[in-house]
Amino acid sequence: MCRWAAYRGTPVPLELIVSAPGHSLIEQSHCATEAKTATNGDGFGIAWYGDHPEPGLYRDVLPAWSDCNLRSLARQIRSPLFLAHVRASTGGATSRDNCHPFVQGRWSFMHNGQVAGFDKMRRALENRLSDHLFERRAGTTDSELLFLLALEFGLESDPAAAFREAIRFTLEQAARAGLSQLVRFTAAFSDGETLYAIRYATDAHAPSLYAAPFVRSGSAAGGHCLVSEPFRDPATQWGEIPPGTFVKLGAEGLTSTAFAPGEAMALAMTA
Amino acid sequence: MCRWAAYRGTPVPLELIVSAPGHSLIEQSHCATEAKTATNGDGFGIAWYGDHPEPGLYRDVLPAWSDCNLRSLARQIRSPLFLAHVRASTGGATSRDNCHPFVQGRWSFMHNGQVAGFDKMRRALENRLSDHLFERRAGTTDSELLFLLALEFGLESDPAAAFREAIRFTLEQAARAGLSQLVRFTAAFSDGETLYAIRYATDAHAPSLYAAPFVRSGSAAGGHCLVSEPFRDPATQWGEIPPGTFVKLGAEGLTSTAFAPGEAMALAMTA
Amino acid sequence: MCRWAAYRGTPVPLELIVSAPGHSLIEQSHCATEAKTATNGDGFGIAWYGDHPEPGLYRDVLPAWSDCNLRSLARQIRSPLFLAHVRASTGGATSRDNCHPFVQGRWSFMHNGQVAGFDKMRRALENRLSDHLFERRAGTTDSELLFLLALEFGLESDPAAAFREAIRFTLEQAARAGLSQLVRFTAAFSDGETLYAIRYATDAHAPSLYAAPFVRSGSAAGGHCLVSEPFRDPATQWGEIPPGTFVKLGAEGLTSTAFAPGEAMALAMTA
Amino acid sequence: MCRWAAYRGTPVPLELIVSAPGHSLIEQSHCATEAKTATNGDGFGIAWYGDHPEPGLYRDVLPAWSDCNLRSLARQIRSPLFLAHVRASTGGATSRDNCHPFVQGRWSFMHNGQVAGFDKMRRALENRLSDHLFERRAGTTDSELLFLLALEFGLESDPAAAFREAIRFTLEQAARAGLSQLVRFTAAFSDGETLYAIRYATDAHAPSLYAAPFVRSGSAAGGHCLVSEPFRDPATQWGEIPPGTFVKLGAEGLTSTAFAPGEAMALAMTA
Repeated sequence: MCRWAAYRGTPVPLELIVSAPGHSLIEQSHCATEAKTATNGDGFGIAWYGDHPEPGLYRDVLPAWSDCNLRSLARQIRSPLFLAHVRASTGGATSRDNCHPFVQGRWSFMHNGQVAGFDKMRRALENRLSDHLFERRAGTTDSELLFLLALEFGLESDPAAAFREAIRFTLEQAARAGLSQLVRFTAAFSDGETLYAIRYATDAHAPSLYAAPFVRSGSAAGGHCLVSEPFRDPATQWGEIPPGTFVKLGAEGLTSTAFAPGEAMALAMTA
Repeated sequence: MCRWAAYRGTPVPLELIVSAPGHSLIEQSHCATEAKTATNGDGFGIAWYGDHPEPGLYRDVLPAWSDCNLRSLARQIRSPLFLAHVRASTGGATSRDNCHPFVQGRWSFMHNGQVAGFDKMRRALENRLSDHLFERRAGTTDSELLFLLALEFGLESDPAAAFREAIRFTLEQAARAGLSQLVRFTAAFSDGETLYAIRYATDAHAPSLYAAPFVRSGSAAGGHCLVSEPFRDPATQWGEIPPGTFVKLGAEGLTSTAFAPGEAMALAMTA
Repeated sequence: MCRWAAYRGTPVPLELIVSAPGHSLIEQSHCATEAKTATNGDGFGIAWYGDHPEPGLYRDVLPAWSDCNLRSLARQIRSPLFLAHVRASTGGATSRDNCHPFVQGRWSFMHNGQVAGFDKMRRALENRLSDHLFERRAGTTDSELLFLLALEFGLESDPAAAFREAIRFTLEQAARAGLSQLVRFTAAFSDGETLYAIRYATDAHAPSLYAAPFVRSGSAAGGHCLVSEPFRDPATQWGEIPPGTFVKLGAEGLTSTAFAPGEAMALAMTA
Repeated sequence: MCRWAAYRGTPVPLELIVSAPGHSLIEQSHCATEAKTATNGDGFGIAWYGDHPEPGLYRDVLPAWSDCNLRSLARQIRSPLFLAHVRASTGGATSRDNCHPFVQGRWSFMHNGQVAGFDKMRRALENRLSDHLFERRAGTTDSELLFLLALEFGLESDPAAAFREAIRFTLEQAARAGLSQLVRFTAAFSDGETLYAIRYATDAHAPSLYAAPFVRSGSAAGGHCLVSEPFRDPATQWGEIPPGTFVKLGAEGLTSTAFAPGEAMALAMTA
């Protein structure tokens, strides 16, 4: 179980989300309250969009709370769209390549959740990747692999469909391997223009997800936050995103639609 | 607030104390129960005595729970006398040079506690060191400095007197600087022959300290453990060491005497 | 191109090979003279056998020359059989999981060399692994994968045949993928009893390998060293191991036989 | 001996200096040609000015050549004034607090050089600092201490005089301690408005320093670079800065004046 936060809007310093407010992401690295594990000390990462199509990426294996580089970068870097993550490993070594966010070209992705029995079907999932995407596999996590599968299944053209298919395919492989068909998946991802999020689980325990308009009093700055766990800010009104939701945050604001890969799977299996 | 454990007896693998038992030191790095802070993720270290007068030393800035090197070393290395520490920084950067144990020649030292207002009197304390010991100062912590002061005050010949004087001198500097005279100090140290520990505070909150004979059923192995926090082991009967105690663990077993630098100070000040 | 050293004999401190002599392995991490790259600063590792069937393992991503932990461990740990490695990455991230030696059960392995076009056939090679060994894949290097393939092909029962087949299979995949059939492979590996080494290349540039009896004057200690590059020691007479050689270093001393996976491949292909 | 590069001008991505050109600073971390040591693998750092008076700071202990974070940051961050450094330790541990640049408030500083006998006079130099600046001492290097001394001696109001006095005081302490009066000092520093550099040595071996106008063809971008060692760029005409020079790079362009703390010392000693 990890914690993450993402922002889209007028450019703001990353620290407004990452380190400044009460119960910020860095504080959550030490004592999250809604997560299964209170400590998220197995590395962290930030991806932010700036002058280039591909985002900047800074990841390290230290706990976020003790990394002075992170505090300085979060203070200096302004961005209209960024993702930030603190990790509590549920498997997979503590290495930079296993830290979120993951980046491929202009796409970034981060995740909080789990795939039951992942080690038993890792190869089957990896073998679904085309050569090009297989060569981009740098770490060993389920999260990075779900991201690569979504790219394989058309993330660039239809993000919701791509992740539906990535999860459906994963559940199908679990069924074939005789494993429990359990996926919990609360993720954010972006192409640098639009920020997307998904909250989903095959059971009743989809990892939490909240959204809020982000405003600063006396400032024209504005945008939206998506977070695992709200931070305390009198000006911010959090709304919980229900399980089974696909969130799209673009120039036109926030829209949400139902997200149900299980139904897609049911259809696929009866076809 | 940190957590530590030390052992003296017949040679045993470090893992018996560091990683194997219920609520081991590595487990305490994640969720200590008697410490002010539950997470001790700001580095760790082990010092152990082997073939040389000076101990081996392995320290790193990662949380102990995620360091695979530590698990392998703790499994392979057998020693008749070792110290192990997990750190929760109360100041001072997360760097190897600030991780406990500290080693000077054949002496090793580790600490759980605090010196109120340390930053305001660091220079005065450092200036009390002779050139030789000043040059050995590698980090910035109060703990390392108290160890160097004890060496300055005769640790080699009279360990109890040396730390009494180190604490007395520290409190005296605090008084001169108009600072609160608050020291909390629960430490273990060794010359490779004898294992010593001190539990002391100027107030009622001396960090916890426990001792137990360490026996393995069906084994001639045996010795004593000194720990910040007991681990669960049906065969181990823990006894709490009261505040104001100096513990000596040598070939003749465990002895404890009163430790009261405040009285030494009172004497010194009226002299 | 990396540098490595291995020892088998009466127990000696690792530092005799790793850090003490002229042009030691740590010194070679800074300025190797027979390697394609003079600097081997992309991590290091040691594996040593002690009380357990499986070896101890210490690896990190820092340059060997700046790791104070390595110096202390090499001084304290005595072992009758150990492997030590300094890495110059030719691909693959600088992470602990990509540092040599690699360990599986009681087997350890380290390598200096390359597989041309490895990225293009990584998946084909990984898919040759049984589920059990595939799940043990922790990093992304060609070296770790060749080790796992050798385990797949019977390393436990016939080490020479297993690596012949691993290399033959690799070359076969290269041929199928239309890639250059180039493997350079100078490796050492052990089960804790016997130390093995191979020097081989499909072209005329097999990475260097030397062997020497290791004796200390005035000491009953004795054994053999296998190294990428000799260190300076008046008492040590180095002999170069020619390309196409399989070396076995056991209780009976050093024996060497021809190693020619190409011929095995030729046979296999005409069969 | 280290290598560094600095820039002042219209905002450019750091990568133009740090990683992109032939013989860039990252390349020099692997194979410098004008330095006493070819490898500068003991950490690195960048300080850059952006939206705040104080600069951003990113430092780490890995070799620059293997840090993927550095490449991404250097590509994303644009700045009108920045300093970048790769370290070859001549003493002092490999820790983040010992990596250049050092930052105090809005001032940044980096250095290539040495103070002979520094360990023997470290305390005397530290004791010259006021309490406020002493508390800001984070590491153990001579470089950081010279920076703090310059702040003590009026860096904010007269940079040249402040460093003259810092070096004069250092040489005076060396004389008092009976040490060789040897300082080699090639440094860059900034308050976020003006970029300064000094090339100086008490002997004939002042570490190298070069300056060049920095232009991009077809671009209005422009400024100046100051570097330890030129990078290859057809459009850049390097000029060597002679020893005993103080360089000032501000809105009005580059000016240089004589820098001779020795004469100041002579005056001070005869006064």
